[in-house]
This record gives sequence, C-alpha cells and structure tokens, in this order.
Amino acid sequence: MTGQMQRIVLASRPDAQASEENFRLESVSLPQPSEGEVLVKVHYMSLDPYMRGRMNAGKSYAPPVEIGETMTAGGVGEVFASNSPDFQPGDFALGMFGWASHACAKASDIRKLEPGLAPLTTALGVLGMPGFTAWHGLDAYGRPQAGETLVVAAATGPVGSMVGQLAKQKGLRVVGIAGGPDKCKLAVETFGFDACLDHRAYDSSEALREALAAECPDGIDIYYENVGGKVLEAVLPLMNSFGRIPVCGMIAWYEGAQTSLTAPAIWRDVLVKFLSVNGFIIFNHYHRYGDFLREAGPMVASGSIKYLEDIAEGLENAPKTFLSMLQGGNTGKQIVKLV
Amino acid sequence: MTGQMQRIVLASRPDAQASEENFRLESVSLPQPSEGEVLVKVHYMSLDPYMRGRMNAGKSYAPPVEIGETMTAGGVGEVFASNSPDFQPGDFALGMFGWASHACAKASDIRKLEPGLAPLTTALGVLGMPGFTAWHGLDAYGRPQAGETLVVAAATGPVGSMVGQLAKQKGLRVVGIAGGPDKCKLAVETFGFDACLDHRAYDSSEALREALAAECPDGIDIYYENVGGKVLEAVLPLMNSFGRIPVCGMIAWYEGAQTSLTAPAIWRDVLVKFLSVNGFIIFNHYHRYGDFLREAGPMVASGSIKYLEDIAEGLENAPKTFLSMLQGGNTGKQIVKLV
Repeated sequence: MTGQMQRIVLASRPDAQASEENFRLESVSLPQPSEGEVLVKVHYMSLDPYMRGRMNAGKSYAPPVEIGETMTAGGVGEVFASNSPDFQPGDFALGMFGWASHACAKASDIRKLEPGLAPLTTALGVLGMPGFTAWHGLDAYGRPQAGETLVVAAATGPVGSMVGQLAKQKGLRVVGIAGGPDKCKLAVETFGFDACLDHRAYDSSEALREALAAECPDGIDIYYENVGGKVLEAVLPLMNSFGRIPVCGMIAWYEGAQTSLTAPAIWRDVLVKFLSVNGFIIFNHYHRYGDFLREAGPMVASGSIKYLEDIAEGLENAPKTFLSMLQGGNTGKQIVKLV
Repeated sequence: MTGQMQRIVLASRPDAQASEENFRLESVSLPQPSEGEVLVKVHYMSLDPYMRGRMNAGKSYAPPVEIGETMTAGGVGEVFASNSPDFQPGDFALGMFGWASHACAKASDIRKLEPGLAPLTTALGVLGMPGFTAWHGLDAYGRPQAGETLVVAAATGPVGSMVGQLAKQKGLRVVGIAGGPDKCKLAVETFGFDACLDHRAYDSSEALREALAAECPDGIDIYYENVGGKVLEAVLPLMNSFGRIPVCGMIAWYEGAQTSLTAPAIWRDVLVKFLSVNGFIIFNHYHRYGDFLREAGPMVASGSIKYLEDIAEGLENAPKTFLSMLQGGNTGKQIVKLV
C-alpha cells in the first residue's frame, strides 16, 4: 500500500503561552503495519488540556513530545489494513493515534468499538478518557457523601460536567465554575448544577472566594481540581475539615501563570484541615474502565447523564482549535473531525 | 480544700519567633473539682511542637490559646481529690492538664495509668501522643511496603524515631534528617536508621537534596512530613511516582520562614507523580489508640522499640525549654518534671 498521510508535529517548545508556531503540518508516506499491527484511518481525534503539558520539556508523568514528533492524541479510526487476526478492515477502534490522518498501532494497544452502541465520538468524551477521569477521581479520591458540597471548575467541560452530574446523583450540592454566562447557564440548566459562577466576573481570587462562600454555605468538602490558579486560591480557605482534593489537572499553571498562593499556605491548609490531596492520571487506572462503562454507559444511553461535544473540522485546524480550547473557547468535549 | 497552684499563661502572641515574653507564670487559687471531676497534681508535662501553632491567632484545627489562658499540654498527674467514682486519690492519670502544677478535669476526659506497666513518662512519648502519631500516620497514610524508602526529619524526636523504627521493622530503607552530628549518630546507632543527614551541614535545600539523593538511590516513596521548610524543598523532587506524604507538622513554617518552594511547584509534583498527601492530627483518631498500645506496648517493653526522653525540671523552666526545643535543643521526647 502506498500513499500519503498528514500529521502535526511539535515544531518548537512554547516559552510560556503556546502558539500556532509551535506546530507544523507535514505530509509523509503512509506507514505499513508490522506483524500484529493495524493501519487506521482516523475519523475523530480528541483535544485535551493534558497535551499542553506534553509540549514542555522536563520530567512529568509521561515523557514530553519530542521536537519533530507527532503530537499525542486519542482518536477513533477505521481499520484500513490489518496485520492482526483481531481486526478486519472496516472495524472501528479507539487508540492513541496522535494528531494525524492515519496511524499504525499494535492491535493489543487499541480497543474495538461497536458503532451501533453509542456514537463513535462518545468514546473520546463522556464514555472515554475524560468521563472515566471524572468517575474514577470522584469515586477513588473524592469519596462523596450525600449532603456534602462539591466544587469543580471547567464545569461544562467533559470532565467537570461528568463530575458534577455524578455528584448530583449521589446527593451532593454541586457548585461549578466556568468561563462566561452562557457556560454557567448550561451548567445549571443542562447539567443540573445547583449553581455555577463565572470566573471572568471576578477580578481577584478574593472576589471569587466571596461569591463561592455564598453558594457554599456549609463550606466545601470536595474540590475536584482540574485547573489550579485563581480557582484553587479561592477554594482552599473554604475547604472543610477532612476535605478531599482529587488533582487531575492544573491547566491555569501549565503556562506558568503567577499566583499569590504560597507553598506554606497550601501545606498549612493540608495540615490544619486534615485534607486528603491525591494526584492521578487516568492512564494508570484502566483496570477500572470496565466498571466505569458498566455504570456510566446505561446512564448515557438513558439520558440521565448529559454530554456536549464541540466538533471542529480538519486536521489543519487542530492547532488553533487546541489553543482556543486552552483559553476556554470550546463548549463541551473538544473533538476534531478528520473525515 | 484551699491552696495555691502555678500555671503559665499566654501573655502575648509572637510576631514571628516566639520568645519568653510571650509567657507569664501566675499563682492562683486551687480549683475545686465539680461533680464528675478530679483535681490532679501534675508530675510530668509534655512539650510538643504543635503548641507553637496554638500561640498564633487564626483558625486552625484547634482554637488558639487565648491571651491570659493557660498554655495547652498533655501531662501525667496524681489524683489529689476526686469527685468521681472512677478515680481515687493516689491514682495516676493522663490528660490535657496544661502548663500547670494542678488541674481539674472531667473523669471521662482522662485515662488511668498503671505505674507498674511502664514508666509514667512513656505515656507522654513513645506510648503516648507522639508515638501514636508516628504509628497512625505511617500506617494509615504512609502505607509502607517492604523494599521502599522512607525519609523522616527530626529523626531522633519522639515522632521521627518511632516512624523510623516502625518502618525498619516493615523492611523499608529509612533515611533520617536531624540537627547536628550527635543526633545523626543516635539515629543510626540507637534507632537503627540506615542513614541520617545533618541538615545543618547543608546551606541550601539543593545541597541537602543532593546528599539525600545519594542516600536514596531508588528515590523516596514515603516522606513523613513533620517539619516543612528546607527539608520539604529538598525531598519533593526526589519523590517517586505514587509516593505518600503523611503531614503531621510543619514546624519550620510555624514561625513564617521564607521558602523558594511555590504553590504551583507543589501542585505539579502532586499531579505528575500521583502523590497522596494527607494532613492529620492524632486527636481525631483516638479510636485506634487501643490497637496502637496492643502493638507498640510489647515492643517497647521488649526493647525492640527504643525511646529517648529529655527531662527538664520545674514549671518555671517550661518556656525556655519549649523555645529551645523549637530550635532542636532537645534530644528525645521533651518532658518537664514538676514534682
């Protein structure tokens, strides 16, 4: 098989804020699947905040993307050629296919999808990595109890909206934080949050804290951390004793934003409020993915869990879509449609 | 019953570093035990770092000591008069008697001691609050596994020495940090640590980190946090993925010491190394005290757990002994003998 494929590589590392110059679209020869591999044509690729972390050098939970290397991404694709007995051309699969029109992957590293069961895109969002992140983080580290209060930022994003809905189902008061009045309305009206604050309406963490305190009259028991920055500054003094903070992201700090929060202040709150703070990345917990699907799948199918997707078109538009997402320009799970 | 008693009250709040002027010795009338109370003559009182936190205003896990109020302390005393069927004069009891020669306490708030089972002072140290703090924090939040590496500061103190010995018994590599070569020698030779570093020998957290890295060739899995400051700065970058940090104190930061560690740096390590950070104060966990005594009591009796006590004399010397302890002037559990 011969032909060309497109991919987007990391052209340079961002100094602080990432820009389109950090990416380069390339056309290269289609790879051939080795023994046990399949060649996939990507239909949908996922854009997620964690990818910003991979653009920086330095030790992290995953090695950084190297200069000249294809940017990392999960995707849904159609098997185009197979060198594995487990897949036939025409099968659909979920895998880490990168920012690319095609990819070779080991059959053992990808998962077959049944297009009839749920829309293919849900494998990237509500029933995929973000939804699973929300479910596992809330369950394993948030340990929600009916009557408690939970706060989550990026409330209409694929993680935040799932955290909020799962917590509501367990009987918690759920207060979201989002960027702009439209997203706040969505959080309350579509996702059922008790309240949602527009962080753009508060010019300091103190002002945001005051508004949060009014919406959390019994304090905050769980802060599901996916943003860091001003929201964490606002939330920490409102945490109740024995509070829990699952930490799955800190997007506000990936680009080095300044903060008035000090290390001793965090440590003091951890100590005097007996907080439980747990960092995690969902890639370490896929042994629970089946449990998640069994619980969340029927809720998505029945409509008791809602989800929103924001679908851009064309691989060439991935960089600007990604950069816009980092600034909150998307509404719902950001996906790029390639085919 | 009439007579006088002595007590030490908080005369003023420290600006930063506490000093003897913050305390005042007073002579007042002996209180009378109400129904259900006993009057105790204190033989030994405990001095512990957490008391420094109580001298500051502001919300903490316990209310601050008010100006003019008796400083908080645990103590061992002899019942002098009893208005409870549960205690007779001559009985010995452990309770929160404060920095005072005598105290009234509810019978239900104190615990009878059997002087024959173990020296009375052990109820304040190795078999009391510090030893129990070490045991619970290590067990519940450290989750030690044979072959792992643990680091603990104040290694010859009553908490650090117990943490180290318990971890050694579970098959961990144990590296201590202490102030001065004599304490380091003690940590290794008496308490069986694999190594102990003198933090005074390193003028920066980077230098301490380099020395720690050499003693922890497989990284650090558990950092039992009781000091904060330079030690935490040195340790954090050496933490392994899935590391655990029980936080029971941050003495270096109680007095507002400067640090180069930032909040985003802590948060990033929590996230990318999947750390589990748990603040706790042992007063919330006394339902496990019986379990602790059943496990640790025989080990202390048999000598397989060692302990050291540093016994000062006279209530009037408590302030200067306390201030010296905050600077590491003690060796072993600091106690003041009153009788």
